[in-house]
Amino acid sequence: MGKTDMKIFETKESEVRSYCRDFPKVFTKAKGHKLWDEDGNTYIDFFSGAGALNYGHNDDHMKEKLVEYITNDGITHSLDKATTAKAEFIQKFNDVILEPRNLDYKMMFPGPTGTNAVESALKLARKVTGRTDVISFTRGFHGMTIGSLSVTGNASKRKGAGVPLHHTVTMPYDNFVDEQDSIKYLEQYLEDDGSGVDLPAAMIVETVQGEGGINAARFEWLKKIEGVCKRHDILLIVDDIQAGIGRTGTFFSFEQAGIEPDIVCLSKSLSGFGLPFAIALFRPDLDIWSPGEHNGTFRGNNHAFVTASAALDYWTDKSFEESIKEKSKLTLDYLNQIVEKYPELNGRVKGRGLMVGIECENGDIADQVTTECFNRGLIMETAGMDGEVFKLFPAINIDEGALKEGLSIIEESVKVVVKEPVTN
Amino acid sequence: MGKTDMKIFETKESEVRSYCRDFPKVFTKAKGHKLWDEDGNTYIDFFSGAGALNYGHNDDHMKEKLVEYITNDGITHSLDKATTAKAEFIQKFNDVILEPRNLDYKMMFPGPTGTNAVESALKLARKVTGRTDVISFTRGFHGMTIGSLSVTGNASKRKGAGVPLHHTVTMPYDNFVDEQDSIKYLEQYLEDDGSGVDLPAAMIVETVQGEGGINAARFEWLKKIEGVCKRHDILLIVDDIQAGIGRTGTFFSFEQAGIEPDIVCLSKSLSGFGLPFAIALFRPDLDIWSPGEHNGTFRGNNHAFVTASAALDYWTDKSFEESIKEKSKLTLDYLNQIVEKYPELNGRVKGRGLMVGIECENGDIADQVTTECFNRGLIMETAGMDGEVFKLFPAINIDEGALKEGLSIIEESVKVVVKEPVTN
Amino acid sequence: MGKTDMKIFETKESEVRSYCRDFPKVFTKAKGHKLWDEDGNTYIDFFSGAGALNYGHNDDHMKEKLVEYITNDGITHSLDKATTAKAEFIQKFNDVILEPRNLDYKMMFPGPTGTNAVESALKLARKVTGRTDVISFTRGFHGMTIGSLSVTGNASKRKGAGVPLHHTVTMPYDNFVDEQDSIKYLEQYLEDDGSGVDLPAAMIVETVQGEGGINAARFEWLKKIEGVCKRHDILLIVDDIQAGIGRTGTFFSFEQAGIEPDIVCLSKSLSGFGLPFAIALFRPDLDIWSPGEHNGTFRGNNHAFVTASAALDYWTDKSFEESIKEKSKLTLDYLNQIVEKYPELNGRVKGRGLMVGIECENGDIADQVTTECFNRGLIMETAGMDGEVFKLFPAINIDEGALKEGLSIIEESVKVVVKEPVTN
Amino acid sequence: MGKTDMKIFETKESEVRSYCRDFPKVFTKAKGHKLWDEDGNTYIDFFSGAGALNYGHNDDHMKEKLVEYITNDGITHSLDKATTAKAEFIQKFNDVILEPRNLDYKMMFPGPTGTNAVESALKLARKVTGRTDVISFTRGFHGMTIGSLSVTGNASKRKGAGVPLHHTVTMPYDNFVDEQDSIKYLEQYLEDDGSGVDLPAAMIVETVQGEGGINAARFEWLKKIEGVCKRHDILLIVDDIQAGIGRTGTFFSFEQAGIEPDIVCLSKSLSGFGLPFAIALFRPDLDIWSPGEHNGTFRGNNHAFVTASAALDYWTDKSFEESIKEKSKLTLDYLNQIVEKYPELNGRVKGRGLMVGIECENGDIADQVTTECFNRGLIMETAGMDGEVFKLFPAINIDEGALKEGLSIIEESVKVVVKEPVTN
Repeated sequence: MGKTDMKIFETKESEVRSYCRDFPKVFTKAKGHKLWDEDGNTYIDFFSGAGALNYGHNDDHMKEKLVEYITNDGITHSLDKATTAKAEFIQKFNDVILEPRNLDYKMMFPGPTGTNAVESALKLARKVTGRTDVISFTRGFHGMTIGSLSVTGNASKRKGAGVPLHHTVTMPYDNFVDEQDSIKYLEQYLEDDGSGVDLPAAMIVETVQGEGGINAARFEWLKKIEGVCKRHDILLIVDDIQAGIGRTGTFFSFEQAGIEPDIVCLSKSLSGFGLPFAIALFRPDLDIWSPGEHNGTFRGNNHAFVTASAALDYWTDKSFEESIKEKSKLTLDYLNQIVEKYPELNGRVKGRGLMVGIECENGDIADQVTTECFNRGLIMETAGMDGEVFKLFPAINIDEGALKEGLSIIEESVKVVVKEPVTN
Repeated sequence: MGKTDMKIFETKESEVRSYCRDFPKVFTKAKGHKLWDEDGNTYIDFFSGAGALNYGHNDDHMKEKLVEYITNDGITHSLDKATTAKAEFIQKFNDVILEPRNLDYKMMFPGPTGTNAVESALKLARKVTGRTDVISFTRGFHGMTIGSLSVTGNASKRKGAGVPLHHTVTMPYDNFVDEQDSIKYLEQYLEDDGSGVDLPAAMIVETVQGEGGINAARFEWLKKIEGVCKRHDILLIVDDIQAGIGRTGTFFSFEQAGIEPDIVCLSKSLSGFGLPFAIALFRPDLDIWSPGEHNGTFRGNNHAFVTASAALDYWTDKSFEESIKEKSKLTLDYLNQIVEKYPELNGRVKGRGLMVGIECENGDIADQVTTECFNRGLIMETAGMDGEVFKLFPAINIDEGALKEGLSIIEESVKVVVKEPVTN
Repeated sequence: MGKTDMKIFETKESEVRSYCRDFPKVFTKAKGHKLWDEDGNTYIDFFSGAGALNYGHNDDHMKEKLVEYITNDGITHSLDKATTAKAEFIQKFNDVILEPRNLDYKMMFPGPTGTNAVESALKLARKVTGRTDVISFTRGFHGMTIGSLSVTGNASKRKGAGVPLHHTVTMPYDNFVDEQDSIKYLEQYLEDDGSGVDLPAAMIVETVQGEGGINAARFEWLKKIEGVCKRHDILLIVDDIQAGIGRTGTFFSFEQAGIEPDIVCLSKSLSGFGLPFAIALFRPDLDIWSPGEHNGTFRGNNHAFVTASAALDYWTDKSFEESIKEKSKLTLDYLNQIVEKYPELNGRVKGRGLMVGIECENGDIADQVTTECFNRGLIMETAGMDGEVFKLFPAINIDEGALKEGLSIIEESVKVVVKEPVTN
Repeated sequence: MGKTDMKIFETKESEVRSYCRDFPKVFTKAKGHKLWDEDGNTYIDFFSGAGALNYGHNDDHMKEKLVEYITNDGITHSLDKATTAKAEFIQKFNDVILEPRNLDYKMMFPGPTGTNAVESALKLARKVTGRTDVISFTRGFHGMTIGSLSVTGNASKRKGAGVPLHHTVTMPYDNFVDEQDSIKYLEQYLEDDGSGVDLPAAMIVETVQGEGGINAARFEWLKKIEGVCKRHDILLIVDDIQAGIGRTGTFFSFEQAGIEPDIVCLSKSLSGFGLPFAIALFRPDLDIWSPGEHNGTFRGNNHAFVTASAALDYWTDKSFEESIKEKSKLTLDYLNQIVEKYPELNGRVKGRGLMVGIECENGDIADQVTTECFNRGLIMETAGMDGEVFKLFPAINIDEGALKEGLSIIEESVKVVVKEPVTN
């Protein structure tokens, strides 16, 4: 095929398409932290598929395993029949991830997208407790199907549901209202019989909110949330779809907070290769599902089992975590320095690990920065209610050189933007 | 890896797993209409991934394209950025499928599972009409996330939601109540201002219900439903996830009924290779989405674009449809003959095309038949509220020899079952 | 006070006012079947407070008791404290109404309006069964608070809720769709596990629908509904607020159908004098309320207890029922004769007892009839979705002379209307 | 009739009855602040029909007007037809209450109970704004029908609904969480697009919460709430059903706070005589009701119009308000003194005007106090989630002698209780 005519997207793909508007090129090839468009331009990827490509693109080790599997006619689609590839994944995930962290979880394979994992977590929590309501948090994002949307805070996304969203109460996330103790509110709501808030089945929380604007909850806040859940016999669900799989420095984002959720949702980078895949983990005593009570056609995506197993090899070596931490520090220092150096930006560094960003005064400024970056060969997106945060999601296995190269493009772009302030 | 210990599934996978209980073997390889387990046994596949493998397993043409793509580091995960593979799919789907059928649809890529396509269809219908309610039909099945579940009839699946399901009204599917005109009821509900049923945004219907028990609506009934929708300015959504992609003889299951839905949901066999993939098609004038108003992390699954494009090659040759029709006739005749020959079975043939089955007196009998089949090397599942229908889903490109072999295994199994009636 | 300036209503009362628009006079005095306006005009009342004045206005016997009670400073407002007047009512209702009919009901005093009785009936049914859904019927009307509105069919009244109405399913009332067996349809929904209709807590039904257009269900249909409820362990609620208290010939409207509801709602004419009053009756074994679980400030309206007790004296004499029947026959014959005599009206007689009317071709014609009647000194309203039925609700103790006088005014009015057909 | 056998209530009235359990006597006569039981015992009434008898029982002026009206066959029941008695009430309410306070409200007559007024206020607010959600406050109580219950905080009352209650968000009432600024919290929810709280149609608030435990919001808090509503274009509904009609010292409870609600609900003491009556007041520009869009059978309770008009005579003399304030001060001082004098009670005085009480350590202690009072001839109830507040609601026109007599009974009772602490 020759060069693609962009018109095909404009005329035949729905108006709902979005990223192709921000990055108006036809991409064709990708490797590690790099992308190529059809014109032969290359880009450093600080976007990482919104967290689905934590190991970069087309990792050689995973690729080799995948091609071998396909070449040998390994079974591709199996629903929840037992397969060799699935057994291997389950065993390895248990050996490499769960056991070393003293986590005893059973594993469920819903449809292979994050929202399906969230929907199954909510169903299970409701079934186990016999309660209907779920507490979510301000600025939380958990997915676009009706169940997940009902625990999502974003007003315009909620409106898209086209129907009222029920059985959820939004409580204040850490630092939602300055200088107020959000835990105290939460507990008072749970303890006062006249509060109008019923005892919920579960709370669902992100340790660092991605879509919500790269908001990192303090570990002590997370610890307190866990305490409230325990005291009130509420299940704690951590949605680790975006913050997990190494993004904040450890495999699970909640490890450093010292908490142990009752249910964990994983997806995005779980397959390692960018293939659709999702799981829900939960305490064995919660596993009261009836066979087939929740299911999905692609819950047995063996290609993803194969690459996900290969991806786990990264985690057998403790130095991998160390390397993420070093790159996190390097990134954070660089961002802090940008904020200091360009006071006109009025920026504020946010986040944790390699899930960081700079909050600008408004979405327009953040947008200008990402546009300048794109023009200089760096892909990066914005987050927050107004898109006011530009958000760095480099591959967690990126080499330091590329990381620095990307950071310097950001600095250059900021420099251009603050020198040419836009009025609107 | 040596032989898999089935215990890994029992101890580490959730109780929600189901098919591995009916087919208790570890599958490892698959090709065309055949599956291999780790013990080296082979099976004829009359299950076809519940409709996700209409072209059989690991089709060589698609496989070649996929391996080539991966080997060349073709971009794997792209969200909704423009990619070469995506452009090719859109163009080819338009050229091979839509244009020859005079269908003018725009295309949306939700998360890559059927339920995501349904959720996006419902959202769009609500947005376009500004109405909240949707009419679904008795025995309908549309998915397991809360939005899709709300239009699903199955009581136990609905109960699994853990919350009440709203904004939907279930109207009688064709033949729901014997000798009663279900269309007359439906229209009266819509026309009487005191009916308690509000004008809905949409009706969502399967032309042949899979999970509901292989119930095929008459073409004239579908035509009337379309008429009611038109008269009342209601959007008609055909969920063609299971019945589409050739399963009933034509690419779309609704072609023969002569109707043209406003919105169509496709998934399952769309990628051709069993990879997660889903789209929603709709009339261009309905495309009022805002950018990103509905999205999903894996909406750009390029591997699926590649195999889906390759799969479309089947449809460039008109003789393909013919061959499905011939095999459908062969299958139907065989089933009719079984029913006649074994009156003790008290069976009733149901369905259309290669989406057919025999309704037994109860789920136990149907279950015995499928168990006997499995023991003889044929994989087949049951459907219906009590699992009372055993359901034949051979690959639509299966060769006649394998098809007959499978059918004869079914006959043998029926013979055994009716000779040894179980009492319970 | 001098003559009232109607402007006070126009400027100070809400636009929601309605009857004062149809009958634009200031009424001041009333006695039996007669009303007086401030101009000294008299009117025959075939409206009877929409069923709240079955015994006519200011009945002398009740009036005497009431004035005596007030004069002696009998306690007026008592919530649910025990009072002499309340004890007398409970005892007398039991002795005069329940026991002779072999009905064993306990009695609950909700707030003193029909909708409060319905809301408490729904709550109780849900509590007893632990189920959430309630089946109501097309064209049913049960009140304007959110709970009652959710079981009401009228589209514009439902819309007034401003929120979606849930937990209810509307099933077809008798004769909703011609020539189709609505019972069969209902049962299929209850018995098919894929119907999308859950087992409800209760069905709520009017034996004759007032607001819905004076639709009288056949006794055999009611009997079958009772059978379906019994077979499926569903509570049967009869809303006898408009059709009860003698309106259809017997104290309860369901007596002639030979059914025995689990819960009965009464209000409107229960106090006899037009005073706010409502009760819910239910089988003693259903009485699992906690003290105060449902309440209301005016649940102890002693003035109503006093007049309601006096009103029961009508029912101690069996000839009272006979007299209603005779007047019902007279009325029915007269209406049938009107329909025959004025074929241009294209009328259809509907209803039962003294709850009858003539369905015209549309609301405009029915409206013209009632307007002509009002101009001739007869008050009568319309019912039905388009107000297409003019509705005769004479006092059940009206004397034959007045009844005939009213009927002849109707005939005269019809005559005028059919001679001067309006086109629009 | 001889002496009433209490058994009639036990065998024939529902278990839902409550006050007759706390005050197990059969009451028969009442006058001013006094009640008589059938045994000839008299009681001082510090209960006042839970706020429905602010002017005491059977006030002579109102009684005279009512008896005269009935004797003359004044029309009793009129729905919303225009009547002389209604016109008089509307005019007088406007002249005596609204105009002198510079309030320009239109008036709506829903069914004659508080919950009907609340339901109509919610409907109107939703209609006017086109929004569905309503913000209510912790510990708020607004009625027992589903619409009103959905804005009520009490957990056990909410549970009684039997269905989930939606379209409402509960925000913290003044002092819900110590030392935190609940207004800041509320505003953040309204202003942050990711808060999960949609812009509501209205806020509904009580200036002093009765059922919630005699919680008086500070005037400045109410003023701020009004400000938030104005800034966000949210309608402010004051439910003045219990706190209004002089209970806190002025006709409307919100006068002293200097706020002007968009909608006001009145009932309870509105008729003056304890007769069922309720109105909703609203700004004229909000009056977009269609005729009959909300209605109710007893919306034209002329007896209540008559007594309500007579009751307004109290308010023509400014000294009436003064007298309430004096008695309020006397009462407050007395209660403060009790708390000081009996430190063992560990009491806390709450409330405003003649809507006051003492919060005890728990419901048992408060219960003992009211029981001791009843034994000494004083009727008083408890409030709060655990019934921990004993609540003084003397008639606002009680003479000082009777007030002091009642207060001294309370002191005696407290003395007995604190000397004989109960352990449980």
